[in-house]
Amino acid sequence: MNISALATQVKQAALQLGALTSEIKDQALAQIATELKENQARILAANELDLARSEKEKLAPPLLKRLKFDVKKLDGVIAGVESLIRLPDPVGETKLATQLDEGLELYRVTCPLGVIGVIFESRPDALVQIATLCLKSGNGVLLKGGTEALETNRVLTEIIVQATTKVGIPPNWVKLLESRADVAEMLRQDQLIDLVIPRGSNDFVRYIMDHSRIPVMGHADGICHCYVDAEADLEMALKIVIDSKTQYVAVCNALETLLVHQKIAGPFLKKLEEEMAKHEVVLLGCEQTRQIIEIRAATDADWETEYLDYKLSIKIVSDLDEALDHINTYGSGHTDTIVTNNRAQAGQFLSLVDSGNVFWNASTRFSDGFRYGFGAEVGISTSKLHARGPVGLEGLLSYKYQLIGQGQIVTDYVAQQKTFQHKPLSKEAPF
Amino acid sequence: MNISALATQVKQAALQLGALTSEIKDQALAQIATELKENQARILAANELDLARSEKEKLAPPLLKRLKFDVKKLDGVIAGVESLIRLPDPVGETKLATQLDEGLELYRVTCPLGVIGVIFESRPDALVQIATLCLKSGNGVLLKGGTEALETNRVLTEIIVQATTKVGIPPNWVKLLESRADVAEMLRQDQLIDLVIPRGSNDFVRYIMDHSRIPVMGHADGICHCYVDAEADLEMALKIVIDSKTQYVAVCNALETLLVHQKIAGPFLKKLEEEMAKHEVVLLGCEQTRQIIEIRAATDADWETEYLDYKLSIKIVSDLDEALDHINTYGSGHTDTIVTNNRAQAGQFLSLVDSGNVFWNASTRFSDGFRYGFGAEVGISTSKLHARGPVGLEGLLSYKYQLIGQGQIVTDYVAQQKTFQHKPLSKEAPF
Repeated sequence: MNISALATQVKQAALQLGALTSEIKDQALAQIATELKENQARILAANELDLARSEKEKLAPPLLKRLKFDVKKLDGVIAGVESLIRLPDPVGETKLATQLDEGLELYRVTCPLGVIGVIFESRPDALVQIATLCLKSGNGVLLKGGTEALETNRVLTEIIVQATTKVGIPPNWVKLLESRADVAEMLRQDQLIDLVIPRGSNDFVRYIMDHSRIPVMGHADGICHCYVDAEADLEMALKIVIDSKTQYVAVCNALETLLVHQKIAGPFLKKLEEEMAKHEVVLLGCEQTRQIIEIRAATDADWETEYLDYKLSIKIVSDLDEALDHINTYGSGHTDTIVTNNRAQAGQFLSLVDSGNVFWNASTRFSDGFRYGFGAEVGISTSKLHARGPVGLEGLLSYKYQLIGQGQIVTDYVAQQKTFQHKPLSKEAPF
Repeated sequence: MNISALATQVKQAALQLGALTSEIKDQALAQIATELKENQARILAANELDLARSEKEKLAPPLLKRLKFDVKKLDGVIAGVESLIRLPDPVGETKLATQLDEGLELYRVTCPLGVIGVIFESRPDALVQIATLCLKSGNGVLLKGGTEALETNRVLTEIIVQATTKVGIPPNWVKLLESRADVAEMLRQDQLIDLVIPRGSNDFVRYIMDHSRIPVMGHADGICHCYVDAEADLEMALKIVIDSKTQYVAVCNALETLLVHQKIAGPFLKKLEEEMAKHEVVLLGCEQTRQIIEIRAATDADWETEYLDYKLSIKIVSDLDEALDHINTYGSGHTDTIVTNNRAQAGQFLSLVDSGNVFWNASTRFSDGFRYGFGAEVGISTSKLHARGPVGLEGLLSYKYQLIGQGQIVTDYVAQQKTFQHKPLSKEAPF
């Protein structure tokens, strides 16, 4: 496959996509939902082939589970497409309108980014989800799924192309890549691809970030902290730590390091040890911690490790400053929470922790696009540019300035024959 | 100089800067303005040293002119600082507020990016401008100016550090780099520096973009187009082309290529040739153009060259589609304008040209932060991520999600003991 030629085709189609009306895009989404339903048997059959081959190739059981695409997962995917139809069109929103002068109007209007490259691991449901998010936001997309899901991904892509072509969308807007060599080639197309979204393990994401000049949206690590302050409600703190650590350990917003103020460390850590034993969480601690509870020593490496497991590192700190310093040194800018009844301490924490999600008296597990009410989630970003934290459809958008005049030239303003007014306008861009 | 250690110091200080009140920042800006005035003699004397050395080293006259820092330029810089004080604080703005559930409130709040690296050529006034923009937006900054301006830059940096330290700002927030080796080292600090802003020639900007993993805000090329449609008012078109091409040729938003609809090419190009001769603009054209006016042939290289000179390439196109295709192929995504009385054609142009600034019946020279009314300009970006087009202070910002709870845990929502409300809140974040 010539990936540069393919990306050029997608880019050509993407230029058209930006001008599609909301109606056409929503019709296309509805058509995708319909055809996914109609082709259920074909999709499940393709998935059976993938499953059979992958079992033969001894794919690990958790990956097999992700690969499996049954009626329930298909229904979930279709429901997702239908809820996307109900969201407002993110393209063409007027974000700023200014009358520069009589008859000279400036509008900042949202538009698609252009071409998105998405690389995801085994789950075929991710293919439909990301392709439809790109369609709603007017972006072309190059998709690369796990090789183990190839048959399923081919059928799903075919259905999506067919359905969207029926309502008049240029067929080249979405393309499926099939090999690792294709991905390497895709990562080189920084002239054609505007954004890469990798979905998968943190090693995988870091690999992508290290091997492309195209901007990457995502997060490699999720090293999240909970700081239990001297003035914390200790019962609340316990509840929050348990939820943050154990509600789902394999996710990026699960807790990895607990910071405890020295003043309340004694009683709190003893209770915590008891509770964590019930959840079979292995504890590792700093020297001070180990004088209170008998646990293994945490090394420097622990502070910068995302366990994604029933494992928690604990450090006693002498004050908020030490906690802030620890988080800003070892954290990954993902999600950090403080438990305290002291409003001033909470305010300091929220403004001084340099992370995308900073919480006061709440579990780290809340940082999520659906829980935040965004309706659709593109991913979670630990970058500070463009989009940070849970990213909804707006992460797939850029904007352009539209200036509408009547023949105005700059010479007149430089010669002071005319002067700028810069009056805010309360209207939408005309196009 | 150990640049990594230096950048670490700036980062430490920058973490504090994000929490400064608007009052302190504005006091610091006022103090800078005062001390610049008080130290006028010292600044001008340092600049004299730079000028004398640079003259001896045979620096080109236009660069000497840029390097010269006289009373008028100093007054301009001070006026800039004072106008920055009057702008609202861009940090701490609540961009979204949602009640996720009773007593669980989510706020998206603007915050500084962190550490900005700025590399600029000869003009010392750029140092004060960029340092104060960073201060207003709460960012730490590493500055590297032209070596020819070293004495002036040292004095200016010293004054800025002194002034801001007096009102209690951590002194390490701004650092001056002095050698090219320092820049190379700075471009490697992607763990510490959040954004690089290069200001200078396009070769210089492209060099920076090619030699760093840190995101770069700026533009290498400004290949701007004017498309004169079949239904254009030809007098208006002429005025706009003359202004776009000749009002100031050495800038990124000056016109480089004129696209003319074949239907009006005959009369229009003959008039244009006359007018352009008055402005001593050299014309180059496609074959069709050369059948109408006798000019040199434009090659493919012309379509992708930013002349920054009294030179204009001309191409006749058969319709809007051909114009769009040319612009999206050879353009640099900077500024493109259409002249037409046909509203539908204008709408197509504005939505299908993939550039940061798309104009209808106006000169390309309007794409500029001050003309747009932004008050302060950080630069013009041709990137589609983060900030596009003329960038005001908001280009130096990120945001974070602040979640304020009362001990809520995710387990309760997963178990459906509680459900999300996602009600929009009409209030500001409390911190």
